[in-house]
Amino acid sequence: MGVVVAFGEEEADANRAFLALRELVAGEMAQTDEFILSRMQSQVNMIPELAGHLIRSGGKRLRPMLTLAAMKMCGYEGEHQVRLASSVEFLHTATLLHDDVVDESSLRRGIATANELWGNSASVLVGDFLLSRAFQLMVEIGCLRILEILSQAAGVIVEGEVLQLERSGDIATTEDTYLRIITAKTATLFAAACQAAAVIAGRPKAEEEALESYGKNLGIAFQLVDDALDYSAAQASFGKTIGDDFREGKITLPVVLSYRRGSDHDRAFWRRVMQPGMQNADDLARAAQLMTQHKALSGTIERARHYGAMAQDALAIFPDGQEKAVLSGIVDFCISRAH
Amino acid sequence: MGVVVAFGEEEADANRAFLALRELVAGEMAQTDEFILSRMQSQVNMIPELAGHLIRSGGKRLRPMLTLAAMKMCGYEGEHQVRLASSVEFLHTATLLHDDVVDESSLRRGIATANELWGNSASVLVGDFLLSRAFQLMVEIGCLRILEILSQAAGVIVEGEVLQLERSGDIATTEDTYLRIITAKTATLFAAACQAAAVIAGRPKAEEEALESYGKNLGIAFQLVDDALDYSAAQASFGKTIGDDFREGKITLPVVLSYRRGSDHDRAFWRRVMQPGMQNADDLARAAQLMTQHKALSGTIERARHYGAMAQDALAIFPDGQEKAVLSGIVDFCISRAH
Repeated sequence: MGVVVAFGEEEADANRAFLALRELVAGEMAQTDEFILSRMQSQVNMIPELAGHLIRSGGKRLRPMLTLAAMKMCGYEGEHQVRLASSVEFLHTATLLHDDVVDESSLRRGIATANELWGNSASVLVGDFLLSRAFQLMVEIGCLRILEILSQAAGVIVEGEVLQLERSGDIATTEDTYLRIITAKTATLFAAACQAAAVIAGRPKAEEEALESYGKNLGIAFQLVDDALDYSAAQASFGKTIGDDFREGKITLPVVLSYRRGSDHDRAFWRRVMQPGMQNADDLARAAQLMTQHKALSGTIERARHYGAMAQDALAIFPDGQEKAVLSGIVDFCISRAH
Repeated sequence: MGVVVAFGEEEADANRAFLALRELVAGEMAQTDEFILSRMQSQVNMIPELAGHLIRSGGKRLRPMLTLAAMKMCGYEGEHQVRLASSVEFLHTATLLHDDVVDESSLRRGIATANELWGNSASVLVGDFLLSRAFQLMVEIGCLRILEILSQAAGVIVEGEVLQLERSGDIATTEDTYLRIITAKTATLFAAACQAAAVIAGRPKAEEEALESYGKNLGIAFQLVDDALDYSAAQASFGKTIGDDFREGKITLPVVLSYRRGSDHDRAFWRRVMQPGMQNADDLARAAQLMTQHKALSGTIERARHYGAMAQDALAIFPDGQEKAVLSGIVDFCISRAH
């Protein structure tokens, strides 16, 4: 279940940051893994089979680890760490299952997606099952504020995905709209996962907001880098495939910047290839070449650095210490994946 | 938004029972309709468009009306009637949206389904949105027990649907397995909707359990009749299409009974036609003929009467009065739809 970590020269520091997070929450994370396995059981066999496939197929478990680290920083010593972390991971996993149906994806992290193996119907239903389980775990925690934060997040995530679906192939999408989409679909869960840690620990409003801001900006940076990696050879080292977004006509920031910074001729290219069924075999290479020419990938990473800096500054109000250093380091990890 | 009511001779009493329910909760239901419309708004246009289509396309709104009537019987006078009823309807609507994707349905109540009009992706996402909204409304009610009951119900509903999917086309399905499926996928929400009414009103455990039992058995009877109607000309008067279950290879009780009561020759027929892509144009007529011959439809209705009687007896502990009479009458309504 480990993450695929590539130890290139430039990535060493970033990977150390990730390993530091893993180390910090190793005990709780082992319990969380076990708890997740136990709570996705069902007498209906297809549910644990399919959910198990997804959970085994090697996500980094970044979100639950962040929640656990944030609870540690907030000094939470109650009994619900594992429930909160599992609830966050169930929400995330449910989203992935439905996302792959929506995007008609056949590969995720180089492994066949659940919808490819079991069909769309099973993916839709097991996603629903995990969503229900997430809420059941929150009910067990017994804190209405956490239910409020995460149920609201669940709604916003979907709004982001619907907006992305509406704008699929729409080359006129602005950077602002793109930001609105990734803030909703990705950053909201990071924000809620971190904010909930402060809430469960009974910390003051200022710390709750600081962790929400940290999570939100980290999530934006994370998604920006992810969207750059979709066009970058570097991601091969992460076990990912290249060009998924391109083939799906997803308007991500590298496309937005290339389109806006390009010539009329380039723009005609982008208008064509973002339409369904209009791509030729060598279009991905041409897209990557245009992105290099117009510094669209490095531009995307620059933007990510901006949000990363906001995330790190949001942590300032917390006392210095190991947890804060680890959470700050994760920002560097997320951005340095792009090297 | 009214229900299609056919005033055949035999149905007159049953329809009066339905109209009595509608009359009993008319005021609250008008508020609920308004509230539902207001809470499915989103800045992302596709969401209210699609959700509105489904909500306008003429469901009977049986579940929220039952919740409202049960709250009335329990003497609830708090401010959350409309929220609870809306939450139940959102859960139900989310289920319908995902169901139509899973079943690849193109018609519901004679109207094109959302997945047919907007595509599967939009149906999956808007279903998720409504599910999140349902939980947000429960959070606003602020009662953890209600969240517990409904989040657990949401999980069980999905388990029922996954089990149904697993057993699709499996002609060896027993009546017990069929019962397990419909109890989970249909009766659980009826049960939760009625139980929650007692909980929100702070009624004693015995009344909570009585209403849960009423809802569960009513839900089973409702689904049994629904499954019989899928093979019955009578349903044309309800604006439904005939043979949907048959075409999807759904193993419902009429099929289970016909298969078990039939000759070897009949069983060979059932084995063939329940396989995907193995049906001929005249098979539905032959199926209906076999069902008549083996009294499979009337047998299904007999079973429904059994659960209906249990539902009515469960109400016994409540004092006589208009609300109890209406809830009891709804059992007759659900069963008499089959005439």
